[in-house]
Amino acid sequence: MLCPFQIKFEEVEERYVEPFHFTLDAVCEKTGARAGTLTTPHGIIKTPVFMPVGTLGTVKSLAPEDLAGLNAQIILGNTYHLYLRPGCDVIDEFGGLHQFMNWDRPLLTDSGGFQIFSLAKLQKMTEEGAHFQSHIDGSRHLLTPEKAMEIQVCLGSDIAMALDECIPYPASHEQALESLGLTTRWGKRSKEAWEQTKRPGHALFGIVQGGMYGDLRKQSAEELREIGFDGYALGGLSVGEPRDLMLEMAGISLPYLPQDRPRYIMGVGKPQDLVDMVNLGADMFDCVLPTRNARNGQLFTSRGPLNICNAQHRTSSLPVDEECQCYTCRNYSRAYLRHLYMSRELLSYRLNTIHNIAFFISLMEKAREAVLANSYEAFYKDFFQKIETGA
Amino acid sequence: MLCPFQIKFEEVEERYVEPFHFTLDAVCEKTGARAGTLTTPHGIIKTPVFMPVGTLGTVKSLAPEDLAGLNAQIILGNTYHLYLRPGCDVIDEFGGLHQFMNWDRPLLTDSGGFQIFSLAKLQKMTEEGAHFQSHIDGSRHLLTPEKAMEIQVCLGSDIAMALDECIPYPASHEQALESLGLTTRWGKRSKEAWEQTKRPGHALFGIVQGGMYGDLRKQSAEELREIGFDGYALGGLSVGEPRDLMLEMAGISLPYLPQDRPRYIMGVGKPQDLVDMVNLGADMFDCVLPTRNARNGQLFTSRGPLNICNAQHRTSSLPVDEECQCYTCRNYSRAYLRHLYMSRELLSYRLNTIHNIAFFISLMEKAREAVLANSYEAFYKDFFQKIETGA
Repeated sequence: MLCPFQIKFEEVEERYVEPFHFTLDAVCEKTGARAGTLTTPHGIIKTPVFMPVGTLGTVKSLAPEDLAGLNAQIILGNTYHLYLRPGCDVIDEFGGLHQFMNWDRPLLTDSGGFQIFSLAKLQKMTEEGAHFQSHIDGSRHLLTPEKAMEIQVCLGSDIAMALDECIPYPASHEQALESLGLTTRWGKRSKEAWEQTKRPGHALFGIVQGGMYGDLRKQSAEELREIGFDGYALGGLSVGEPRDLMLEMAGISLPYLPQDRPRYIMGVGKPQDLVDMVNLGADMFDCVLPTRNARNGQLFTSRGPLNICNAQHRTSSLPVDEECQCYTCRNYSRAYLRHLYMSRELLSYRLNTIHNIAFFISLMEKAREAVLANSYEAFYKDFFQKIETGA
Repeated sequence: MLCPFQIKFEEVEERYVEPFHFTLDAVCEKTGARAGTLTTPHGIIKTPVFMPVGTLGTVKSLAPEDLAGLNAQIILGNTYHLYLRPGCDVIDEFGGLHQFMNWDRPLLTDSGGFQIFSLAKLQKMTEEGAHFQSHIDGSRHLLTPEKAMEIQVCLGSDIAMALDECIPYPASHEQALESLGLTTRWGKRSKEAWEQTKRPGHALFGIVQGGMYGDLRKQSAEELREIGFDGYALGGLSVGEPRDLMLEMAGISLPYLPQDRPRYIMGVGKPQDLVDMVNLGADMFDCVLPTRNARNGQLFTSRGPLNICNAQHRTSSLPVDEECQCYTCRNYSRAYLRHLYMSRELLSYRLNTIHNIAFFISLMEKAREAVLANSYEAFYKDFFQKIETGA
């Protein structure tokens, strides 16, 4: 019997692939806020954009249809996690992560650098690459820039990331400088390997490092520009530094990145952080905050966060956020969501995640509208007034 | 601001309510297998029917749309669980369980008798009712027949169940006889309380007990008929007895129940059990098996169960069951489902549950078609041949 599942693969393989490019749709006059359009082999992305994190080939608790219903334009996969589980040989059998996980919109994968820094055991960086032991079974691995590209080509990421080294906060100027050099050299090797093996039209982004030192951030950005990438990311932010310092580093780095390429802030952050980063000229964001906090019962709203376990919601027929049009807010009361959460019901995680992802995605949609209307300043003021006063 | 959630309540309240009734559409000539139509205030149900279990106001891991997509015609809620969490006062605020959980099709609730028997601590039955301590916090409660009706009226169940006492297996004839007497007297009190407080058109079923003694099953069925219920259930089966004994008890009991009322086998069972019970003339089933086993990685198929964690599925692009048309089988490979399960991803539980519920529901749909075509015998033979040989 012919399995309908298998027919689908062929359809995906045959379709026309448009090569990656970026166009700026508008730049807000009074601020640096931008609106743009990214074209990838799996479709276009309107920026600013929030990208939900699908660590292991699934955005925790959601199905692809849930994400499409939330207007998720692109999601992330984690190279480190997928390389360990289920392994590239499994995903290769399916022709890539898109087909394996049943997602037909764009995918971005990180290079694994950050997870090796934050999750792996006994990690050691050499010129060759990142040596580490798996956090699952202790097995030994070496991730070189070339290997990181090979894995991402296998995954079929529309946007791949160069291998970088992430350093802790605080770090000395000397340590940050040395690490930056390694990230640049790995970036160059990533680019060379990518050019030889990439799938047609797929993109590679470089990652700016340099710790919390403005001069090093500038140096890193310039070195990456010299290599030349399809887009540029800021890495090593939101690693424990004060919020002001994070914004300062972004403010210093972004002007050194080319205007005509997308700018991606990795692993950031709270809704306030995103609105501030867009203000500084950033285009793309990913963060586990909405998904992870959803599973801990914290729901984001236009009036600030709400803890669904709070007894005040016990009989409340109100939706989580009266301004929200997501599936959860249209269909469920705070009382029901509280009941599910208190009972640790599986549906709780999905409904909470749907709301939080909807909040982050629609926040970026509104930011885009504001840029296109040349009114980002007013949007910014209104957003902070509401979220900080709760009124 | 007017919340769209609240508007919905009013719509539900205003609609026309058709009173409960049952019609027999067909009875298979060579076997006792029946096809029928149940009409309830929230819609009709074609029998034989499998009813997914929504213990705490949610079928674990599924949203109402998932259930509707699976053609779930009716689901269960557990009186014992909902009484303890979130409590009747919360559900009463919403006008009933339908509105609280966003489910607009029929609902059946049990009376709590079985959960007090199997879950509660320090349970003690007196003539007055069931005394027990909550399995959650140890709080003390008394569930009388009158209280069980009050709770189910509050929940707004289309089909409520009389309070019964469930006994362990094995039990002596004396113990089973004494318990049967209590169940009959509680059934009478349940009926009296129900008649005074029920919502218009809602139904009450009685529960046949009597342990594993044919004479007591007959006595129980006759005593319940004397009281008169809208439908009749067999309780106290699948409590540890051999499968043959369970079928023997059903075979003895069912003929003593009225032909023109629905017959419900509580808490049973495997696919094979359902097919055998339909053969004996049963109409309705509920069981946690498909949902619970889904969360443990066991998937039901027309060729027997499949354990998704098995290494043989590591790179398999096959669906779980090539004969299945469910969302999971149409969109995901065994390899992806195995990966999700091994990674303990939340999506695993939902996709597995969707498949298992689809299997149970479609099995009963096929059974109904066979009865209508007067070919249940052939269906029965084919089903057991496939599932037992795997070929």
